[in-house]
Amino acid sequence: MSKALVVLSGGQDSTTCLYWAINEFGHENVSSLSFDYGQRHKIELESAKKVAEIAAVANEILPINTFTALGGNALTDDINVEQSSDDSDSNQLPNTFVPGRNLIFLTFAAAYAYTHSIDNLVIGVAQTDYSGYPDCRENTLNSLEQTLRLGMESHITIHTPLMNISKADTVEMAVKLGAMDAMAYTHTCYNGAQPPCQKCDACTLRAKGFAEADVADPLIERCKFFRNLQK
Amino acid sequence: MSKALVVLSGGQDSTTCLYWAINEFGHENVSSLSFDYGQRHKIELESAKKVAEIAAVANEILPINTFTALGGNALTDDINVEQSSDDSDSNQLPNTFVPGRNLIFLTFAAAYAYTHSIDNLVIGVAQTDYSGYPDCRENTLNSLEQTLRLGMESHITIHTPLMNISKADTVEMAVKLGAMDAMAYTHTCYNGAQPPCQKCDACTLRAKGFAEADVADPLIERCKFFRNLQK
Repeated sequence: MSKALVVLSGGQDSTTCLYWAINEFGHENVSSLSFDYGQRHKIELESAKKVAEIAAVANEILPINTFTALGGNALTDDINVEQSSDDSDSNQLPNTFVPGRNLIFLTFAAAYAYTHSIDNLVIGVAQTDYSGYPDCRENTLNSLEQTLRLGMESHITIHTPLMNISKADTVEMAVKLGAMDAMAYTHTCYNGAQPPCQKCDACTLRAKGFAEADVADPLIERCKFFRNLQK
Repeated sequence: MSKALVVLSGGQDSTTCLYWAINEFGHENVSSLSFDYGQRHKIELESAKKVAEIAAVANEILPINTFTALGGNALTDDINVEQSSDDSDSNQLPNTFVPGRNLIFLTFAAAYAYTHSIDNLVIGVAQTDYSGYPDCRENTLNSLEQTLRLGMESHITIHTPLMNISKADTVEMAVKLGAMDAMAYTHTCYNGAQPPCQKCDACTLRAKGFAEADVADPLIERCKFFRNLQK
């Protein structure tokens, strides 16, 4: 059986992908990789670690200090995250766009895979994602897969199980795959808040997905539970 | 006139490319980018800085701490560089192969270019290179260009002026472009020696190119000159 490496951000999507990979490749063939790339919210890495722990798969963290040196975006710098506008015709990329971030993540993941004889990469990108990041689209990822195969003489395959499905479908997939225990420890909020702010675009999109799937978000349930305990 | 960014390692090839870019895009439109990626020999970065200084173009250094964390190759770790064998049928990649190194360099360079409104990248890779690195080949670089255009919604073009020419042709190109003053400060030796060891594969290939072009290597001349001074 071939081995798979999941790019694990600690969010809802990559956690679903982790359980997808376990289902697809067998538990013993799956490991996860996270990136410490200077993200403003270190809670992402703590979430990734916790999720991997619950799923009982290895989690390695690779540092990338280059994005911070490049600067100029809301995910690594002290810049406010823009709220989405209703102007869906806008061609402007949001200020959370880190140019080439997923290309870099997947290229380093492929390099890691190369040195560990792993032939499958799994990443939770979706072109249905509201953010419109061009490095989440299917044609970009197909092109990157070809580039990685040529550039490393490898047989790497990039799996994107969420590429064409809605957030509600992702929630249903996570339920079916038994990812809900881990889901309670995922992190989504752009403002790095825990409990999540439930106001930013990321929180709103997550809430919408759970509502449409008619599933209670285990993260919100867990936060409520702890708040009640603290009272 | 559009702007160009040269990936400058401080070696013979990237230095030639820097002068090629100055000739092609005009001096005022060219800048250079180097990577501090944990290479064993920091002399590379000093060479890049000196070369950029002589060419009078800006040089920015971006850190990448990920390759060292990935580990396992002779360019970043304390592993001996393999001497080339005569077994040209060998499919084994040399132990100086850092998986995806040029893909990463060019993706970060493209991200830098994106944030600086630069549409052209120039890199001194050559598929005629004896090392047989798959990320130096034309089909890999064409595929990467397409990936970067899709993934960043950019119009980036990757220029590889040395792709299909011999080392001797590179030397002749450097002479024609007036790169010889800078060439005296380039660094090539895999063993990081200055004066160069003249025994490793990189030194041998460089010497062969200069010999075939019937040009004295200004680096060797400079080292001889200083040695005579010190006597």
